[in-house]
This record gives sequence, C-alpha cells and structure tokens, in this order.
Amino acid sequence: MTNHSYNIHTAKQEGALASWRDGSTKQAILNFVQQVSAQDSPTYVPPAERIAAFDNDGTLWCEKPSYVQEIFVIKYFHEQAELHPELREVQPFKAFVENDRAYFQALSIQEVDKLILQAVSDMPQDEYVQKVRSFFQESLHPHYQRPFTEMAYAPMIELMAYLRQHEFQIYLVTGGETDFVRQVAEKMYEVPHSHVIGSSVMVKLETHHDQPRLIRQKSMLEPLNEGPGKVINMHVHIGQAPILAVGNSNGDLDMLLYTEHQARPNLPLLIHHDDSEREFAYDHGAERALQAATMHDWNIISMKNDFNHIFSEIPAEAACGTYK
Amino acid sequence: MTNHSYNIHTAKQEGALASWRDGSTKQAILNFVQQVSAQDSPTYVPPAERIAAFDNDGTLWCEKPSYVQEIFVIKYFHEQAELHPELREVQPFKAFVENDRAYFQALSIQEVDKLILQAVSDMPQDEYVQKVRSFFQESLHPHYQRPFTEMAYAPMIELMAYLRQHEFQIYLVTGGETDFVRQVAEKMYEVPHSHVIGSSVMVKLETHHDQPRLIRQKSMLEPLNEGPGKVINMHVHIGQAPILAVGNSNGDLDMLLYTEHQARPNLPLLIHHDDSEREFAYDHGAERALQAATMHDWNIISMKNDFNHIFSEIPAEAACGTYK
Repeated sequence: MTNHSYNIHTAKQEGALASWRDGSTKQAILNFVQQVSAQDSPTYVPPAERIAAFDNDGTLWCEKPSYVQEIFVIKYFHEQAELHPELREVQPFKAFVENDRAYFQALSIQEVDKLILQAVSDMPQDEYVQKVRSFFQESLHPHYQRPFTEMAYAPMIELMAYLRQHEFQIYLVTGGETDFVRQVAEKMYEVPHSHVIGSSVMVKLETHHDQPRLIRQKSMLEPLNEGPGKVINMHVHIGQAPILAVGNSNGDLDMLLYTEHQARPNLPLLIHHDDSEREFAYDHGAERALQAATMHDWNIISMKNDFNHIFSEIPAEAACGTYK
Repeated sequence: MTNHSYNIHTAKQEGALASWRDGSTKQAILNFVQQVSAQDSPTYVPPAERIAAFDNDGTLWCEKPSYVQEIFVIKYFHEQAELHPELREVQPFKAFVENDRAYFQALSIQEVDKLILQAVSDMPQDEYVQKVRSFFQESLHPHYQRPFTEMAYAPMIELMAYLRQHEFQIYLVTGGETDFVRQVAEKMYEVPHSHVIGSSVMVKLETHHDQPRLIRQKSMLEPLNEGPGKVINMHVHIGQAPILAVGNSNGDLDMLLYTEHQARPNLPLLIHHDDSEREFAYDHGAERALQAATMHDWNIISMKNDFNHIFSEIPAEAACGTYK
C-alpha cells in the first residue's frame, strides 16, 4: 500500500472496520495503521515492533453487571456451599448464599482475583482449566442470556483482525487471571496462550516419582496486572512497548501513557461506555482515564456513536469472522 | 514431507545439521522432528504446539571459565571501584580489586543475578541496556579471545534453524537475567525479546508529569528462572509445555522432566560437556541431570562425539547462517 491518504472510502471498499461508524475515531485508526505499515511512509514501523495491547474486561467483552470472572467464582462458591453446608456461615460464602449484592459490587478486579485464589488453591492446574471450560460451556450472561463467549464487542474483533492483516502482534493485557482468560482467548480473539498477559496465580511444581504436576497456590505473582503492573509485565513478557493500546478504565491509564511516550508513532485509545441502550453507561472507575484522554487529546471511542452495533447480531459463528 | 523414514542420508542431501556428526543423537533429532511435523504422521503435532525450549549458558553458548553475565558484572564493578575508591574495602568490590578468583568461582548463576542487582539497581532500564550493549561490543572471551556474540555453539544454531524450518516456536529459557540475554538473543539466535524467559529484575514505573520511565529495582521477580522456576515461568509466559527441550545442568532437570511427562511426543536433550580439547570438560553442576538422563534414557549430546566443530570456524557472519 503506497497511498498514505487511505481513508474511510478506501476502507469501505475493502470492508475494513465495517461495524464502525464513519467518524474521526475510525479515521484515526485507519490513518495510523497505514502510516506505520506503508513501506514508504516516513513513520513506518517494522512488523516485529507493531505491538498492540488490548485490555479485556470492558474493552473486548462486557464487564457488567459483574466481571465474568466474578460470576465464575460465585458459581463455584455456591457449589462448594452446597457440598459443605458449614461454609454458609463464613464470608465470602455467606454473601453468596444470602445473595448479598452490595458485597460483590464493591469488589475490584484484584479482589475478584483474590477470591479465585481462595476458591481454587491447591487445585491441580489441569483440573482448574476443566472447571473454567465447563463454566463457559454451561453459563449465560445474566443480562443478555447469551454465552459469555458471544459477549465480545464486534467492532473490537474487527479491529484486531484489521491489525493482524497489517502484521501487528496482538497481546491481551488484562487485570483478570491469566489462566481464566486463556481458556477463551483463542476461541474469541484468536489470541494464543503465550499472548495473554494477566494476573497470574503462583503455581508449584510437585514432582512425585519424577512425574511433575503444576498445582495452584494461594498467592499471586507480583506485580498484579493492573495499573503500573500492566507496564511492568509487558516489559517482562514482551520486552518492548506497544505502539497501539486500548483500554477503558483507570487500570489502563499507565499502559496508555506508556504507549504514548515512546519515540515512535503511537495510538492510545480509550473506550467510553456511554451507551445505556445497547450496553451499559458508566464512568465509574474510568474517571482518571477519561480526564487524561481529554488532556492528552487521545481518541475516545464512544460506544454509542462509533459502533454500528455492539455485539455480533446473530449466531456469533456467522457474524464474527474470527469465531470458531 | 510424507516419508517417515527420514534419515541421515536425507538430511545430508538437505544440508540439515551439517555440523553434527552422524550417530544416534543426530538421528533421534531428525526422526523426532519428522514425526511431529509430517502431516500424515500418527504423532503429528500442529505448529502452534511445537514449542522448543533452550537453556542458554552451557547449552547455546560457552559458560566457562565464567558465566558471561559474571564477566559483565566484574567489569562493571571494576569501573565503579575506580570511580569510587572507598568501595575497594567492601565486598564484592574487594574481591574484584584483589582478583579473588575463589570468591567468584563459588558463585551460582542466581548469585550472579544478585550481583547484577546490586550493581545496577535504581538505574533506568534504557541506561542498563546501553551498558550491556557496550559490554558486548567491547569485550572478548578471556579464553578464546573472540567476541562473546561468537561464542554460540554452531551445531545448536543449526538445530534452532532446523526446528524453525519445521515451524517450531523457539524460546530461550535461561537462568540468566532476562534483559541481559535479550541484548544478544536476536543477533545470535534470532530469538525476539518476547521469547526470552529468564530471571527478571523488578522494575518500577516512575511517572513524572505523565512521562513514564522504567527503573530497575533491587529485587528479582519470583520465581527465579532456574530448576522448578523454569517450568513455572514457562507456564506463565507460554501457557503450554515444550515438546523439545535442551539443557546442560541440574537447573534444567525440572524442565526436561516436564517436557517428558506430556501426553505427546517429546524430546528432552542433555548436552554433556566432555570435550576438554575444543571446549571445557566438566560434570560439576550437572550430576543429577546426567544421572536422570541415563535413567530415563534421554539422548545425551556429547560435545566431543556429536559435534563436528564447536564454534563457527571463521568470521561468524559467514559461518552461522543466522548471524547478522
């Protein structure tokens, strides 16, 4: 592609970002991708350095009314409380049994991570993976009544596909627990396990008669993957900064600033949940990020104005190109 | 390739593993790679799962008379002791100034990691990278008098190239410090930063006026990448087990056992330093690994018998296909 003035018209012909409404945000994405990938562009970036970092909860899939991971933990704790009635008097089981919504709605993603620890420590890694997979097979989103694996934002799936076409390497950089997110990352986003950077549970290697097995422990690896932890873990895992990053909350702010302050072209993007009709409208937990985005003149993706539709319309298998 | 009886003869025609002498080890490698990559093979493994893990020190490059990283630290400490004479009475500076060889030869790779910490904590990450790069540009191996970047074992470079041809994904899984090894991994082994799993120094994100910068701290991320830590960090970074792994010491034993105990075809390989003429002969630090290799009937790579030559003969640029 030698034409720098790639525009919405050209994109339409190619069918790129079809779920995005025409506007300055879509145009900024198209411009940026062309500027870094056209060989004769003065701001060309070689493919090995075209790193894109995506937050997950609220950026790639719906995080309301609760984090998906939280719904998984609640379900698991309910099962445990039925198996062991004595647990019903102990927190957090008590809150589950009594359906104490206030208790849960006050939780941050890090606190949910800790609940997962409590739930599944001393569990062999392969058993945990089975539990997560069963959850995704059996459970529906409480509001939309669709499988969670269909709760990805269609325009974001398209954005990832568009970046991949232009030889970007895509990483999920999520506050969620790494092995939880990995169980859907390939199916939903075509992101392999090695490209999921999350908050990781410490595992122990137990070797009996030379037979090693990974067992989940009660602690998390430092730093948790939120705020500055996202930048530190990207450094440890990738060893270079992204040139494009997308987030939606205060926990993504450091990652977006880090992306912006490289001596290279870059595109920080912030999703704004402003669509109360098709999804949920909320600024809570994103106040600092929204303020920074305005100050730094970042592109804010308005779900209400920039997305033609939020989720894939009908069978996700048909609607999302990447869904298997 | 539909022929399962790929053999040394076929390999010769293709020029594969030319620096390896014909023998059971070379044959085992050729067989294994064919068995997992031939589409009609009953033991076919899809490319996404063809993970190969290579230790670095003593497996890919020479670790005697000292770890390269140790030579870097000693040089740095010498410079510091000259700049700050009062340091000459304090260990480890005292040992450097007095050239106390016994002090250093007793160090493990983890202890060398800790010395690095001491040397370069509170240093901005980009400054550290510059120091490491200068070291590799200016220093020669004390025994061979060649740049360290020419101290890779030529047969191992060939093995990596051969695996890459067969769509393996290659990771360095090193006890050394991640950002130290990264500075040569691409040039020497064609391994990008994201595929170097090592012992990582904690970095802090310092943000002044919204300008973030990574600063190296005095602590290491847990677990250090040695012994069981190699398995745990592979799980965190890659999320799947290797089907081929190469090591040379006790610190690689867990990684080799982990590779062996997957419900898939696998090839654990142990390098034996038994060539006192062309390199160094030593079993120290590899006793348990050698014992396990015999018990488990792993292929032991004899540097004396399996390697036609150890290092690339003449200008590495010409001899190693992968050297840039």
